[in-house]
Amino acid sequence: MIILRTVREMQALAQARRAEGKRLALVPTMGALHEGHLALARTGRRIADHVTVSIFVNPTQFGPGEDYGRYPRTLKTDVEALRAEGLADVIFAPPVEELYPNSGDGENLTWVTVDSLGDTLCGAYRPGHFRGVTTVVSRLFNACRPDVAIFGLKDAQQFLIIRRMAEDMCTGIEIVGVETQREPDGLAMSSRNAYLSPEERAQAVVLYQAVTAAKRLIEAGEQRSQAIVETMRKTIGGAPLARLQYAEVVDEKTLQPVERLVSGQVVLVAVAVFFGTTRLIDNAFVRTP
Amino acid sequence: MIILRTVREMQALAQARRAEGKRLALVPTMGALHEGHLALARTGRRIADHVTVSIFVNPTQFGPGEDYGRYPRTLKTDVEALRAEGLADVIFAPPVEELYPNSGDGENLTWVTVDSLGDTLCGAYRPGHFRGVTTVVSRLFNACRPDVAIFGLKDAQQFLIIRRMAEDMCTGIEIVGVETQREPDGLAMSSRNAYLSPEERAQAVVLYQAVTAAKRLIEAGEQRSQAIVETMRKTIGGAPLARLQYAEVVDEKTLQPVERLVSGQVVLVAVAVFFGTTRLIDNAFVRTP
Repeated sequence: MIILRTVREMQALAQARRAEGKRLALVPTMGALHEGHLALARTGRRIADHVTVSIFVNPTQFGPGEDYGRYPRTLKTDVEALRAEGLADVIFAPPVEELYPNSGDGENLTWVTVDSLGDTLCGAYRPGHFRGVTTVVSRLFNACRPDVAIFGLKDAQQFLIIRRMAEDMCTGIEIVGVETQREPDGLAMSSRNAYLSPEERAQAVVLYQAVTAAKRLIEAGEQRSQAIVETMRKTIGGAPLARLQYAEVVDEKTLQPVERLVSGQVVLVAVAVFFGTTRLIDNAFVRTP
Repeated sequence: MIILRTVREMQALAQARRAEGKRLALVPTMGALHEGHLALARTGRRIADHVTVSIFVNPTQFGPGEDYGRYPRTLKTDVEALRAEGLADVIFAPPVEELYPNSGDGENLTWVTVDSLGDTLCGAYRPGHFRGVTTVVSRLFNACRPDVAIFGLKDAQQFLIIRRMAEDMCTGIEIVGVETQREPDGLAMSSRNAYLSPEERAQAVVLYQAVTAAKRLIEAGEQRSQAIVETMRKTIGGAPLARLQYAEVVDEKTLQPVERLVSGQVVLVAVAVFFGTTRLIDNAFVRTP
């Protein structure tokens, strides 16, 4: 396992491996690796011949009041976790100026955007967030030249936007989603869980409970979006420290809110909740019976 | 020389050539090839081992009132021109749905934009034009995977925006500019010259004359942008059929208007002129003495 810091080295290595006929996987992460990330890398091991895990805390996907500064940076333990299980051939951990090469001129000028899919859910509350994500992922694709890229379905909206971007941009890169990994009580694994106090941590399970309740309702035949949202709101309301940002039912293709579910339609039920300044999300894809 | 129509075939071929250690050049064109395009392909032959010429009339870079529909499409003679001189190994001529694969869903959602550099000159008069250019060029880069891409300096603003985009996006692709090719009287070669009536064609030389006059003025020590612009305006005014859109002096890095030139500064002097509904441009980079 080697650690690369520059785009040039990364491109040269990818080119050499491709020339050997190897199938290359990329697992983009912001580090602070947990079991969720390791599940992505294990998927990479299974479906490709060569796995690159990128570790880069991307400044352009954080809003002004968000946690860019305090986002956990734990490269040493990240490297150890990947090495212990032999999960990566390459760790690509570039400094900011490698992926934003002209930022010395001032602000970043070049952006990759996906219209409309980023307008709802998290996108409505984090303006510019998905633009930052698609921009950095495009650059990681250019730097790492994978055949397949692997993302967690916990960030469902991000997954759908990136898949659309990869298709639209003719990257030829297959986008694979991996099921959300969960703590024993059901809390979705997230690097931001580390911010939670013990009390907050205990109550954070309501996100999973809300999503699960919504899923059961739909599977039991409920088609009124309002009733499903009401159930999620009530479940989140059961946690005194939780402050709901949104609870929504959207179409999995357009990500636009659905009023009445149609038989056979796949929807995404999704919640975002603050505990103090820590923002957590959870969601599930559900097929309407 | 082979003609490819799909992104998948193009990527497979590029991958095979790269694996052989070949240096790949891409010459993106909209077809209707003239000597200017052939000069780009000849440059490709000189600096690379393998030349792909793409021919694609890109819908997203044309505005609503512009000439997308009537833009000349002459694939057969284009192919012959390239074949006659052995200038291309591959002609990549995809249908629209290959580069806009989800347009069946409605409009295109995914865009590559370069802020600020597209706000002046042509960008000010053709909203969305450069967004269309950077979007399609990114897709052509992903489809053709070149080491070097070659563009005409006649479209100077386009060249500077694409170079910035290629750098910012970590493409690793070298962007090469080739001097404007001209008719014997100085008119810059352009596929749109074919739209001109004989009278318009005779008068169209004023663009070159205006740019040349501006260049001489600067080289003679003129530093007041207003005086330089005035000279260009007057020269264009000498052609009764010409309608000036803009005459400007901008900094070559920021593309922002310059009021007073500074010794050593490189500026771009640029004009856009209508003859009837035909829009022509010309320009020159000039170093202030």
